[in-house]
Amino acid sequence: MPSPTLPPPPFDTSLDPIDQLRSVGREFHGRGWSLGTSSNYSVVSTRSPLELTITVSGKDKSALGRDDFVRVDAAGAPCDGSGRKSSAETLLHCLIAELVPSVGAVLHTHSVWSTILSRADLPRGAVRIEGYEMLKGLDGIVTHDTFEEVPIFANAQDMEELAARIRARIQAADWGDPKRPPFHGFLLSGHGLYTWGRDLAEARRQIEIHEFLFEVVARTRTFADAGVPTAVRQQQTSQQQQ
Amino acid sequence: MPSPTLPPPPFDTSLDPIDQLRSVGREFHGRGWSLGTSSNYSVVSTRSPLELTITVSGKDKSALGRDDFVRVDAAGAPCDGSGRKSSAETLLHCLIAELVPSVGAVLHTHSVWSTILSRADLPRGAVRIEGYEMLKGLDGIVTHDTFEEVPIFANAQDMEELAARIRARIQAADWGDPKRPPFHGFLLSGHGLYTWGRDLAEARRQIEIHEFLFEVVARTRTFADAGVPTAVRQQQTSQQQQ
Amino acid sequence: MPSPTLPPPPFDTSLDPIDQLRSVGREFHGRGWSLGTSSNYSVVSTRSPLELTITVSGKDKSALGRDDFVRVDAAGAPCDGSGRKSSAETLLHCLIAELVPSVGAVLHTHSVWSTILSRADLPRGAVRIEGYEMLKGLDGIVTHDTFEEVPIFANAQDMEELAARIRARIQAADWGDPKRPPFHGFLLSGHGLYTWGRDLAEARRQIEIHEFLFEVVARTRTFADAGVPTAVRQQQTSQQQQ
Amino acid sequence: MPSPTLPPPPFDTSLDPIDQLRSVGREFHGRGWSLGTSSNYSVVSTRSPLELTITVSGKDKSALGRDDFVRVDAAGAPCDGSGRKSSAETLLHCLIAELVPSVGAVLHTHSVWSTILSRADLPRGAVRIEGYEMLKGLDGIVTHDTFEEVPIFANAQDMEELAARIRARIQAADWGDPKRPPFHGFLLSGHGLYTWGRDLAEARRQIEIHEFLFEVVARTRTFADAGVPTAVRQQQTSQQQQ
Repeated sequence: MPSPTLPPPPFDTSLDPIDQLRSVGREFHGRGWSLGTSSNYSVVSTRSPLELTITVSGKDKSALGRDDFVRVDAAGAPCDGSGRKSSAETLLHCLIAELVPSVGAVLHTHSVWSTILSRADLPRGAVRIEGYEMLKGLDGIVTHDTFEEVPIFANAQDMEELAARIRARIQAADWGDPKRPPFHGFLLSGHGLYTWGRDLAEARRQIEIHEFLFEVVARTRTFADAGVPTAVRQQQTSQQQQ
Repeated sequence: MPSPTLPPPPFDTSLDPIDQLRSVGREFHGRGWSLGTSSNYSVVSTRSPLELTITVSGKDKSALGRDDFVRVDAAGAPCDGSGRKSSAETLLHCLIAELVPSVGAVLHTHSVWSTILSRADLPRGAVRIEGYEMLKGLDGIVTHDTFEEVPIFANAQDMEELAARIRARIQAADWGDPKRPPFHGFLLSGHGLYTWGRDLAEARRQIEIHEFLFEVVARTRTFADAGVPTAVRQQQTSQQQQ
Repeated sequence: MPSPTLPPPPFDTSLDPIDQLRSVGREFHGRGWSLGTSSNYSVVSTRSPLELTITVSGKDKSALGRDDFVRVDAAGAPCDGSGRKSSAETLLHCLIAELVPSVGAVLHTHSVWSTILSRADLPRGAVRIEGYEMLKGLDGIVTHDTFEEVPIFANAQDMEELAARIRARIQAADWGDPKRPPFHGFLLSGHGLYTWGRDLAEARRQIEIHEFLFEVVARTRTFADAGVPTAVRQQQTSQQQQ
Repeated sequence: MPSPTLPPPPFDTSLDPIDQLRSVGREFHGRGWSLGTSSNYSVVSTRSPLELTITVSGKDKSALGRDDFVRVDAAGAPCDGSGRKSSAETLLHCLIAELVPSVGAVLHTHSVWSTILSRADLPRGAVRIEGYEMLKGLDGIVTHDTFEEVPIFANAQDMEELAARIRARIQAADWGDPKRPPFHGFLLSGHGLYTWGRDLAEARRQIEIHEFLFEVVARTRTFADAGVPTAVRQQQTSQQQQ
């Protein structure tokens, strides 16, 4: 007795890559992660030579058309003759596709919580996320009893310089254990999140996981003593003051 | 003058159990309670012997297909010959179906507020929810003038050990009064919520009630002195400091 | 060049009252204001004698069917022979329809912010909302330079007793100036909001206005000194401590 | 292999201006930025003479019909013989269309965060937003390494007086560099946001950018010391107290 009334899902892996990317845009815009033409999304189209299909610069992500994508080479230069232009940040997509093993898709989003945390924790160089079951949604992690350090890079408009810093960080990490990548995404401070996956479904999942955990970590800080009854907190305060 | 334009509801009890479970996934993913392949949902298919139909491990809950379910026996082992595999947490679904009277469906979700509260209140062993009208949405409760203690268990990856602790807790409680179950769900710390119902509609309702109340309780702590005007609060502060 | 693609609106005044009520349920459940079978909604069907059409008790508001309503008389007793039963709170709907001039519809919702504020401000007896442009969305208010005191009543399960308190409060107020009702809704502490309107569209609008303003008022308290730079705040704090 | 299943986008620039405005209403109401008949939206229909098409006063923005618009002249007076009436704030739309270069659409919304910030920062006269990548979504801004001062005006019901203050502020600013407008919107305190664009798509984008940044700025203040570990914060507190 299957129902004909279930509406199509927000993300459907049976669609072609372009329509999958369009669906991601619709969904992320709806959640407030890709407002105002922010964000860019890509899939690896070929590995040899490395070519990506990426969103054209400046598009409304809630209304991506089938022509709002451009094919670029490993250096981020358009290579499909369409004359379309992708964001300057295309270079970061290429870098990730080149350096991180097995990447098939890269997603970059701008959310409220990632923006806040990426500024708050820039002095520490990373957002530390520890002890949450949801960490198991990141590739290779099999227990909550671990931690993730999401690297934060100071934002920059000089994409070559920024790419060099990120390249150095990725190359310094040990990607040898496919069961436990050193990190699954990174933040640009005051800017947003990059994450990736073997395919778009995995990249979308890792966006959801990072965003969920950023919100948990940030909201927890708004009531740092949440677990402590008020009376105890007041006592602690007086003790500090003595 | 009925309207043909009202869209189908998010959850429709006239659908078969599989499509109901699929709808729950769509709805909870949309609310942010089942992001990133987290969560698992089950219904009791037969009582003698006890068999559950449960979500296959690692599926995107916003796009569950009719084949993304597996039938398991009372020990959580697949028994439908499909070769599909459910989450390790299937054991907890079986445990609940076995021990809690009249359970027809079990839902497990991962929300921001349940994650935060389940860590904050782990030292107390429970989230205490007291005096809210919404408590009446929990099975058997007929007045706001009561309280619910939602048990919290430390998270674990050893499902046998975790199941043993939960079994002990459920068995130690008095389920003798069908009008007032001792609790209607429990939390795994830093992980999420389990609740249940006679059928999926009731389980979905109890998810909504718990989530609503968790949000109220947690947000209230972010402004503990919300009811007190600033002037009074400052005075209190000086008094504490004297 | 009108578009055939605009989807139907969430609330359509061209539908009959039952379908309008069903739409309100769908919309409010989606916003989290009517979760878990909470809330009840009514319209005045006749004035002489006073009869209301109200939601049947315990229904999922996201999936109201055309039969999930019952007609009741001025005392809240069913009068349509359907055998359906409405909530005990039906009495409050009747009371409002009887006492507040020109009421054609009554809506009762359970939101996170109304629940929080209704507890925090119970000692003061009202939530005070002052100086917001959005106040002009309440019937009769023509300037932001005013205030609204939303009465709060301690919650009770004895509906006769609660109704008597509310009756006294409504009767004590001056409803003589149709341009400026003394209040446009009230809160039950830890429970939720009642508001109303000449018709369902107005009642829905007043729900939105109250909910918006409750959120603004409550969130403002989470950063009471939001307008004051940190340096100033620290200085104030030291002064208090001297 | 394009999919026939992707639903229509929330905002579609291929629709005529009226349907685009209707779509904006639906979308903004859904996000909580235009609740309760608040907000008004306009497009410039002709430049010589200046005429705008603007929403009729008091309409539910989630259900705008094709007749819920009126054409007004440069002074805000209706000029289409329809007998429809727009909001008193029409004058502000006209003012913006007259004074800000290249304006083709004006949007005015009422959100929770803009309401909160516009009150909190009124004493400073502006909300300062600094260092965010999302600033690049505002017309002309090409780096995060800049700041925006969103002017705040005290709210008023005397539209002539309010318009005069806003006129003076716009005229005092230097609009000579099309690459860097002095501001991209303004706030009325306790009321809401005005922004604009060459067309409705740009105005909608600038609403999204402002709203995103307001939320980031406001939430950041709820945990002012978010980047500082608790131990350090406690130490700082004791130092202040010595």
